[in-house]
Parts: sequence; structure tokens; C-alpha cells
Amino acid sequence: MEKIRCGVLGATGMVGQNYIRLLENHPWFEVTYVAASPNSAGKKYSDAVKGRWQMNTKIPAKVANIVVEDANLVSKAIGKCDFVFSAVELDKTATAALEESYAKNDIPVVSNCSAHRMTADVPMLIPEINESHLKMIDAQRKNRGWKKGFIVVKSNCTTQTYIAPIYALEKAGHKIKTMFLTTMQASSGAGYPGVASLDLIDNIVPFIGGEEEKCETEPAKILGKVADGKLTQDSSIKISAHCNRVPVVDGHTVCVSLEFENKNKKPSKEEIIKIWREFSAVPQELNLPMAPKHPIYYTEEDNRPQPRKDRDTDKGMAITVGRLRECKVFDYRFVSLSHNTVRGAAGGGILNAELLKAKGYL
Amino acid sequence: MEKIRCGVLGATGMVGQNYIRLLENHPWFEVTYVAASPNSAGKKYSDAVKGRWQMNTKIPAKVANIVVEDANLVSKAIGKCDFVFSAVELDKTATAALEESYAKNDIPVVSNCSAHRMTADVPMLIPEINESHLKMIDAQRKNRGWKKGFIVVKSNCTTQTYIAPIYALEKAGHKIKTMFLTTMQASSGAGYPGVASLDLIDNIVPFIGGEEEKCETEPAKILGKVADGKLTQDSSIKISAHCNRVPVVDGHTVCVSLEFENKNKKPSKEEIIKIWREFSAVPQELNLPMAPKHPIYYTEEDNRPQPRKDRDTDKGMAITVGRLRECKVFDYRFVSLSHNTVRGAAGGGILNAELLKAKGYL
Amino acid sequence: MEKIRCGVLGATGMVGQNYIRLLENHPWFEVTYVAASPNSAGKKYSDAVKGRWQMNTKIPAKVANIVVEDANLVSKAIGKCDFVFSAVELDKTATAALEESYAKNDIPVVSNCSAHRMTADVPMLIPEINESHLKMIDAQRKNRGWKKGFIVVKSNCTTQTYIAPIYALEKAGHKIKTMFLTTMQASSGAGYPGVASLDLIDNIVPFIGGEEEKCETEPAKILGKVADGKLTQDSSIKISAHCNRVPVVDGHTVCVSLEFENKNKKPSKEEIIKIWREFSAVPQELNLPMAPKHPIYYTEEDNRPQPRKDRDTDKGMAITVGRLRECKVFDYRFVSLSHNTVRGAAGGGILNAELLKAKGYL
Amino acid sequence: MEKIRCGVLGATGMVGQNYIRLLENHPWFEVTYVAASPNSAGKKYSDAVKGRWQMNTKIPAKVANIVVEDANLVSKAIGKCDFVFSAVELDKTATAALEESYAKNDIPVVSNCSAHRMTADVPMLIPEINESHLKMIDAQRKNRGWKKGFIVVKSNCTTQTYIAPIYALEKAGHKIKTMFLTTMQASSGAGYPGVASLDLIDNIVPFIGGEEEKCETEPAKILGKVADGKLTQDSSIKISAHCNRVPVVDGHTVCVSLEFENKNKKPSKEEIIKIWREFSAVPQELNLPMAPKHPIYYTEEDNRPQPRKDRDTDKGMAITVGRLRECKVFDYRFVSLSHNTVRGAAGGGILNAELLKAKGYL
Repeated sequence: MEKIRCGVLGATGMVGQNYIRLLENHPWFEVTYVAASPNSAGKKYSDAVKGRWQMNTKIPAKVANIVVEDANLVSKAIGKCDFVFSAVELDKTATAALEESYAKNDIPVVSNCSAHRMTADVPMLIPEINESHLKMIDAQRKNRGWKKGFIVVKSNCTTQTYIAPIYALEKAGHKIKTMFLTTMQASSGAGYPGVASLDLIDNIVPFIGGEEEKCETEPAKILGKVADGKLTQDSSIKISAHCNRVPVVDGHTVCVSLEFENKNKKPSKEEIIKIWREFSAVPQELNLPMAPKHPIYYTEEDNRPQPRKDRDTDKGMAITVGRLRECKVFDYRFVSLSHNTVRGAAGGGILNAELLKAKGYL
Repeated sequence: MEKIRCGVLGATGMVGQNYIRLLENHPWFEVTYVAASPNSAGKKYSDAVKGRWQMNTKIPAKVANIVVEDANLVSKAIGKCDFVFSAVELDKTATAALEESYAKNDIPVVSNCSAHRMTADVPMLIPEINESHLKMIDAQRKNRGWKKGFIVVKSNCTTQTYIAPIYALEKAGHKIKTMFLTTMQASSGAGYPGVASLDLIDNIVPFIGGEEEKCETEPAKILGKVADGKLTQDSSIKISAHCNRVPVVDGHTVCVSLEFENKNKKPSKEEIIKIWREFSAVPQELNLPMAPKHPIYYTEEDNRPQPRKDRDTDKGMAITVGRLRECKVFDYRFVSLSHNTVRGAAGGGILNAELLKAKGYL
Repeated sequence: MEKIRCGVLGATGMVGQNYIRLLENHPWFEVTYVAASPNSAGKKYSDAVKGRWQMNTKIPAKVANIVVEDANLVSKAIGKCDFVFSAVELDKTATAALEESYAKNDIPVVSNCSAHRMTADVPMLIPEINESHLKMIDAQRKNRGWKKGFIVVKSNCTTQTYIAPIYALEKAGHKIKTMFLTTMQASSGAGYPGVASLDLIDNIVPFIGGEEEKCETEPAKILGKVADGKLTQDSSIKISAHCNRVPVVDGHTVCVSLEFENKNKKPSKEEIIKIWREFSAVPQELNLPMAPKHPIYYTEEDNRPQPRKDRDTDKGMAITVGRLRECKVFDYRFVSLSHNTVRGAAGGGILNAELLKAKGYL
Repeated sequence: MEKIRCGVLGATGMVGQNYIRLLENHPWFEVTYVAASPNSAGKKYSDAVKGRWQMNTKIPAKVANIVVEDANLVSKAIGKCDFVFSAVELDKTATAALEESYAKNDIPVVSNCSAHRMTADVPMLIPEINESHLKMIDAQRKNRGWKKGFIVVKSNCTTQTYIAPIYALEKAGHKIKTMFLTTMQASSGAGYPGVASLDLIDNIVPFIGGEEEKCETEPAKILGKVADGKLTQDSSIKISAHCNRVPVVDGHTVCVSLEFENKNKKPSKEEIIKIWREFSAVPQELNLPMAPKHPIYYTEEDNRPQPRKDRDTDKGMAITVGRLRECKVFDYRFVSLSHNTVRGAAGGGILNAELLKAKGYL
């Protein structure tokens, strides 16, 4: 099989580097195009990231020599790649416009950015949860007069950390009414250079701009229903989120408390763990290359999950859950953890692209 | 004025060292007796803590040369000190017995340990909140046939971090119904050597044994009422706590969400901040040496309080509160922070002793 | 090919866990025996390491169910494994005796421990450097009347970090006269729980017991010559080492300054880099499974090598060198880095065993 | 006594904030003028540092309300302050010109910046070492036609960490010939935001731009002699420095090895410790407010000095030395530590100003 050619927009940033790393030796996709800010344009990729390469593997030889293009110039991409991953670090308006310019030019965009997350006709895909939202692509093309191009986004990395265990419970018939979240998020979530070391040595920062809002609003769209080319949000879960930055390289940890709608039929602790462990969905059925074998792992030890020790579970694509116990105010509480730059960023984006390919959109 | 002679039990441990440090140059108290485990007994204090002194000030010269006694032998203390601070690191039963042996021998015990926190006739003092519980000392002496001796305890360091802002609101007439807590606690809370560095480099630990229970149960006793020699707990606030260990030396941070009993008359954000800033109590009126000028500071900046930057506020004795905002599930949420080894341990113990002295118990 | 059965002594410790992790799916060796302290004996391996498993991969399923034996009882090992890796955490005398008891009972010992490093007839193997020292095994067996058993050791993890670049230069004809080392060593080098977090948050410790001596004395044995069943040390390099502990999980970094014997014929910077990059030795020729493709990597960037970003180079088995530049006092200086628990511990031990197997000793 | 009015140029940066903090309640100086980049100009100081205040004390009330001026406009300073501390963060040429503009306008400049460190007629003052260099002020004024203004600089913060112990030995008659330095430097040395947290979590960086050169060249000027209005450098010590950044907030640690010129008369370990402990100089004689009681402390414990535990010794103004032992290559080796933002920056600058005042230059 010939590989599908892909581009990475924002290839020199933190998420972009993760794309470059994770796509090395990908069985379906091959990086043939890299683009970044005008500053990097014209340089070989290895020169553009010199002194800034944060991965603990070497720069893939094939990509090292590709000349970086200016991501703003969609004309440079035409003919060089079949679709792009977008991880640009621009403001919301500029990002939205840039992504649209690619889609309009027949280059599908699989985006990590938040710019289009709340755009009505853009699906926010998590392949284990809302494969049905793929239908929005047809509506989107129709709305906008696009032929081949389209935009799909993924959710915020933090949302990704707790939404799968929640969805698994709802899918098993246990509707959730209320949810309390407190996050302890990794430094890599802010990119590079991102958070100053003086803020994270012997310190934490109890604030991440815009993050609490994302945690509270994205689930409604992810869990929404698509009918007649319209995506209707499901706002039935009330959510409160406190977001914090902690001195961890990779891996977001979330303390979750939840309340079921039906207090009389709430599942037992053993039932919940069973639901999580047996949860399996479309990516597993299709055996997508980046899909974890199990989307959710439950760990029995008292003091787990821990970011450094659990984030790499199943290629960094699985959610690790632990410490399920009764909550003194709601019904249950637990700790959920995922790798924010793999599952929560580049790995999640690649899984989206794999689903799109498997379903014939790429 | 002649200084009151005090002893420190568990003087070589982390909290013990903080007592030694904070009592240097205290206007009322003078350390004349130090005791620890049999291993340390017979050594000069400076030798007993050699290679283990964790403070960033030098060992006070006067204490350096005191010979450490075995804390189990109350006979050694008799005549050498007028009361003791207890910070021993023994199991609960041994601690309880040891503290009773001092009290029985006419040596009042101002304790940091958890052993007697839930003992019915032992008050859990926070001078800004429940000075009225001092009356339990008389009941305690009567119950146990003790003449001069008694035991008072302080709360857990984490409880200390959020209980003052809560109490201030209730005192102002805003009864609280429910409270959600997620803590991010400093390494020093586990003593030395305590938590392994491999658990706190690029990592957090979402579990601290027994801590969630303490956070959930201590407030009822602290906020209780004393009548006829009995302390009746006030369990009217439902509390849920998630406790986590983070890579911070000193300073516990707590994310708090709360719900008022009377939804119709809940205070505005401005009123709450005013209540906190104007909160003042007995230690401030009595101008106790260790008392902070203000028990609670509210910080306006988005990203505060932060442990390294705010823990030392007002000698490390104040609570710093910030980020008060509406909660999507309950009424309000905020972040509360205090210095766990000062306000939450040795400094809090000294403040208790100062109140006892001012009220004639020492 | 049937796999050779191996045991791991000290299997529950930090280095032992790394053996278990790295031997999963090894093409030649299979873990069939695990032993540790009497405390762990009788438990399934997964239970014995519960709450203490530090690896970021799961416990290999095959090993999880093996019952741990008491490492002191060599009788338990007989018939269950063909050789053992020793990573026990006992004092020097006990370790030496324990390892001898296995060797005497026809079970070869590939050791990570320091107990026998300076024993005259025990070779300190680094396969890229002193394969010729294997001849000492025959002498050792003869000296001690052992038939099949023997003991080989590896060097200290820190020595391993700088000795290969030094040896490569000497092998190329550039004899070294003096060497200055300052190390910045990872926490994992001290095992678990090892260094207290309070010593490594916002702190470093400029002391590691016994480490400077090891750094200064081991090279003489490693670089020594074997003739007539005797190993003669080569003490021609004068070495001074300062050793420090820094807040890093894995990866020792060493600042090296060196002086050549022949000032007039010292190599240029370019020649040195070429020598390092082209260095290849027996493990590479034999294509041993654990051997890095290149033993030494040179990195051009100003600010590298860095532990988190470079320790995993070539499976964690390569040394990464950078910042080669002139020294104001000696001739050259550079920075050398290696993964202390892979190349410097379990990975290095496995490479030793692979060499022994390839040469017919296992 | 009326206080001398001082300004702080670069008052919003890391060093500037330390000046503001340390000058609160200074007995001789009062901050009456603060200046920074045009971005901050026109704002109240408390607004200009909002979200960036890194100190663990509150902004001094008197300074909080001062309106920040543009540091480039010397006209704003005239009449508002009697001298300035310079801690601007501009490039070398711009800094040099800016400092000269103040001096030319009769405003003496006590600088932390490196721009004028190697300027021939500008003294690099360390009050304990080269008070005699004050004479260069007269020469400087004459050279440049300045009346009241002048520029004095302090050394690099790292140089400050090891130069006093070296000078104390030379002053006692033990001339040093060679010195090897390896530094482990705090994050605060790079200012705020400075080093990215992703570079200092589970990591160190073995490179600091320009730092090795400063460590190797500044001592010659500091130890130089002044005669006939000329400062002659003393380059008799050969120095090699490796500089590293480690995850520490404040406190530079330096591993030092040294060789005496006269091998036959080198002092014993006991003599060296005695020399250090008894070292006292002009600031101690004059009892300058910021002077430490002892410039050098020697710590006996094996594992000290450590940055978090020793940096605050004697108000953060003392050097702490430890681990003096023989060196296998040179004569002795030891570890030296100082607080880089107090002794090595703002505190050192204030001490310079105090000496200038005591000697009649301010």
C-alpha cells in the first residue's frame, strides 16, 4: 500500500514535534510537508528546531532534511500532501482562517487547535466516543461549498483525560448528572518555552487561562447527537473544574467526583471497574494502528495512577484510572490520567486521521 | 518577665526542628528540654540532628548543646520544663500513652500529633476559631484526675489551610452546607526522609494515607460547641476531599468549592472578600506574639496563591486565599494556601501555647 | 534456539526491576527465577513489588506470577536457572559471600554490585573495552576450584558514563595523562526509596558516599592488562572526581577535562569527534542484542547532552558526548552522559551476559 | 540621619525586584525612583509587576505606588534620586550607554550589569576584597570629565561564589596557581521567565551562554592592583570553568579544585579552615548594614553546603564552604555556595553602595 502523504502545520512547536516523532514509521501516513511560522520558513527542519527539539528520540532522518514552509501560504502545500495535521500556535482568529484556507483548497485539516472546536459544523472527534460525528463532514462541506477539504478537531488534552471513563459509564446505562474535576496538569501542555521554571520549582500554579471553561463546555459537544446535518449538544452533565499546573513533564492527572442521575440504581464499585476494563470501541474493532488495545486501564494500587509511571501505558494512548471509592458528597470519586502530548495531542490527532482514513474520508 | 520553660518531644524530627527554629528568641517561652527516640538520647542536640537538620537557619546555639533525653521517660522532664510541645513520630497508641504520661505528671502537653485529636475531652484548638474550647481543659482534668497537666491538640495541617476562610463566612452568618476539597500538599508534611525523590521528580502522588478522612472529619470537632463540660461536634457541613502530594517543599494548596445553605441570601463575591479581609479574632485582639496581623489574606492576581511565593505571608502564620469565582455546580470556588510546617505545625502549636498562657493555663 | 534460563537476585529493587523490564522478550535469555530478601520470599513477584514498581511499563506477565525466593538460599536456585544477575542490596561482605555461594554451586554470577569489583581475579567487564579480561574467568575458576560457576562484575554506573570516550581516544593512540570529573547524578542511582524528596526539591546534594573513590579507582582496573592469569591495573591516568546528586530521575551527566600525555601531538577537535563517532567494538561486531549501534554519539548543539532528552539514545545503551572545546587549564573539556539504570546498570549487565554467551561462557 | 534617595533601573526584573525587597527598611537608603522599559513606564510599580512579582514578601507599600519611569530617559531621574542601582536587561551596548548617561548627569551608578565590567576605568567591586579599587572612581571621573557621577560594577554572581575563599587564602600568603571550577547554577540567575520549566524538570542544562568566560576572566580584574589611576589585572591564576544550570530556585554551587604555587609550603586542611573562618574585611570593620558578620562560613557536615539549606546564611550575604579535602590531581578541593540573587546580585550591589557611602562617594 502506498502511504498517504501528510503535512504538519506548526511542525516546530511542541505538539508539532510530537507529530514528527509519532509519525516516523507510521504504516499508513508519511510526512512529506512541514510548515511553521515565517521565521522558520526556508530552513531545513533540523535547523529550524535546533536547540529546541524536546523529544527524547532523534529527529527522523527523512524529516530532518525537509525544508520548512510558511504555514500561512497554503499554495506551498498544494500537491505536496494529501492532508495536514494542524498544530499552529496562533491566536484564535488567525488559526481559524488558516485552517479554513487549507480546507478550501482541498486539503483536509485534522486539527489540534481550539479555534474551531466550538464551530457548529466542525466535529470534535474522539474515535472511541463519537465516530457518528463524522457525518458532520458532509454537512460542513455542503455549508461551505468545499469539495474534498474539511476540518475536524480533537478535544482539549484535559477533557480527553476524563471523558472516556465518563462516556463508558453512560454507554453502560449509568447516566451522570454532576461532575467535579480538579486537574493537575503537565508543563508540556503549555508548549515550549511555556511555563517558566521559576514557576514550577518548589511551586505549583493554580491557574491555566481558559482551561476551566474548556473542561466544562467541551463534553457537551463531544457527547452530542448528530441528526439531519446538525450537531446538538448534550448539556445534561453539570461540570465544575479547577485547573492547576504542576511540575510534571507529561501527563495530566484529574481528581473526579461524580453523581449519577438515578441514585437508586447506581452501579457498584466492582461494576464500574468492569465497565471500564471491558470498554472497547470503534478504534479497537478496526484495529487502527495508533489505537490502544484497551482505551481504559484500571490500576488497583492505592497510590496510582501517577504521571511518570502510568502516562506511557499502551503507547501513551490509554487512559489510566485508579482509586475508585465512594465520595462523601456525590456517589463516587476516582483519579484519571492520560498522556497530554500523546493521547491528548499528536497521538489523538493521528488516531482521528486513522479513523478518517478507515471510513474513507482521507 | 521570666520566660516559661518548655520542652519539645520529638525534637529531632521535621516538626520538632521547626519548633526549635521558631522558638529561638521567643518572648515568652524558652526551650530547656529536648527529647526524642532512644537512639538520640544522650547525644547533644546538634549531634543528634547532624546530617538531618533541614531548616535554612543555623541550630540555635542554646539548644545545640542540650543533651537529648528519651521522650518515653517522663521522669527526665520533671523539673526541667513547665510544659511540652509534642511532635513525636510514634504510632497512635504509643503517642496517646506518652502524652498522657506527661499530663498525669503535671506537665501540660501542647500536641501536634493526631493521636488525641478525636479524644472526646481533648480540645482541638485553632485560636482564631474555637478559643471557647479551652473550657474542655477543666473537664479533662476532672475526668482524668489530673491537677496541673492537660492535653490540647491542633488540627491536621491541611484542615488548617481551609477551615479559617470557611469559619469566617459562617461567623458572618453565611452557613455552609457542602464543601469539595482537592489538596496539593507539600513534601515536608510527610517528615524527613518522608516521600522518596523518585516519587516527586516529574511526578505527583494522588494519595496520602489517612489524609482524606482527617480533612473530612476534623472540621466537625473544630466547629463544635462546648457546654457542661461536653464538646458536641457540628457535622452540618458535608465534605469530600481528594488529597495529593506534589513536588513542593512547604505549603499546602487546596482547591475549594462550596455551597451555602441559604441559596437565596448567599453573599456576593465582594462581600466574601470583605469578610475574609476583615476577619480578626482572639489572637489578634490579644496581640499574641506568633499571631498573624491578619489571619486571612486575599490576593487579587489570577494565578495566586502559589506555595513558594505566598506561604511565608505574615510569618507563615496567615492563610492566603485567591481566585474566588462562581462555581458551575455549587456557589463559589477558590484556592486556599498555608504554610504546613509553620501555621500547620510548629507555628500553630506555639500559637496554641500563647493562647493558653494568655488565658492562664500555662 | 532454546532460551537460556536466568535468575535475578535482588529482583524487587530498582536495578532488579530494570532487569525484569529489559529482559522481557529478550531473544536469548528468559527470567525463570527471582530472588530477594526474606521479606519478599514466598510472595508472587507482582505482590512483592506492589506499591514499589517504578518502571513505566507493566510488570511482564510471565514474571508477575513467579514466586520470589530468598536470595540467601542458593539451593532454591539450583536447577531453576542457568545463571543469575546479581543486584542484591546488602553490605559488601554479605554480597561477596552470597555471590560466591552461587558461583560455587555452578551458577555463574553476572553482578551489578560493587562487592567484588576490586577482587583480583574477578573481571570488571565493559564489552566495548576489555573483552580480553574474560580470560580471568579461567584463572578465577582455577584459583577457587569452581567448575562451571564464576563471577563477573560491571563497573560503577558513573564510571561507565565517561570511560568509553576516554578509552576510544587512548585506543586511537592519544594517551591521557590527567582527568578532572564533576558529576551530576540521577536520583535512581541511589535506589528506591533512596534520596529523600526534601533533599532534591529546589536543592542538590554535593556528596555521594564512596562515589568519588569509585570514579577515581575503577578505570585503572578496566583499562588493565591480563597476562598469565593475572590482571595488572593501569594507573597511568591521574583522576580527580567531584560527585553530586541532582533532581533528575535517570541519566548521569559528567563534566570532563583532560590532558594528553603528548602535548605536541594532541588531536584536533575534529579528530576527537571523528574518533568517537567511528568507535565500534566487539559488541557491535558480534551484533549482541543489547549492544547500541554506536557506543558513542556526539551531539553538536551547544546545550546538549541533557539527561531527559539524551539518556534514551540507542535503547539507553549509548554514551552521548557534547560540548567538546578547549580547556583553559588542560587540553580539552566536554560533557558526557549515559543512562545510569540501563547502560550503567541492568542494560550493562545484560550486555555482559550476552558477551559471555557469545564467547561460550554461558 | 536623612536617608539617601536611590533609584532602581530595571526595577521590574528579577534583580530589580530583589533590590526593591532588600531596600525596604534600609537604614541609609530609600527608594524614591523606579525605572524600567517603556512598556512599564507610566504604570504604578505594583501594576507594572502584576503577575510577575517573584519575591516571597509583599511589595513594599511605599514603592507600590511610585509611578515607573522609562529608564532610557535620564531626565526623569534628575532631582528624584541621589544615585541609582542599575539592573537593566538590555544588550551590552545599550546598557553601557544608558549607564553612562546617568553618570554624566551627576547620578552615580552602582551596577549589576556586565556591560562595563571589563571597562578599564570602571572598578569591579567586592568590598571584602578590593576596596582599594575605589580609587579608580577619581581616575574615571577625570578620564570622562564627570563631576559627581561615576560607574561601579559588581562581578558576576558565579564569580562571587568562589572568589572570596580564594582571596582569603592568597591574602594569608598561599598563592594559588591553578583552579578548576564546575558550577551548578540556580534558575533565578537567568531572570524571569528565563529558563523554561521543560528544561529543568527531570533535567539539567550543561551550558550557560557566556558564563564560563566570565568565571575565567573576572578574577584577574577583581584581584588586580590600582596604581597611578590604572588598574592592572592579575592573571596569575589559571582557571577552567564548566557551567551548568540545575533545578534550583536560588543559590549557585561550585565544585572547586585548586593548586598552590608553592607545593612545599601548602597549608594544612585545618589551616585553610581557620583562614576562612577568621577572614574578615572592610565591610565587617565598618559594620556596613548589609555586610555579613562573617564573609565565609565553613560547614563540617559531609553533605553540605546545599543551596536550599545554606543560601540564606547571614542574610544571604555569606559564602558557605564545605567538603574541603585533598584532590587527587591538584592540592585541595571543596564546595562553595552563595545566594546568587542576594550576595550575587542585589545584596552585593547594596553592599557596594554602603561602602561607597561610608567612603564618602555617595
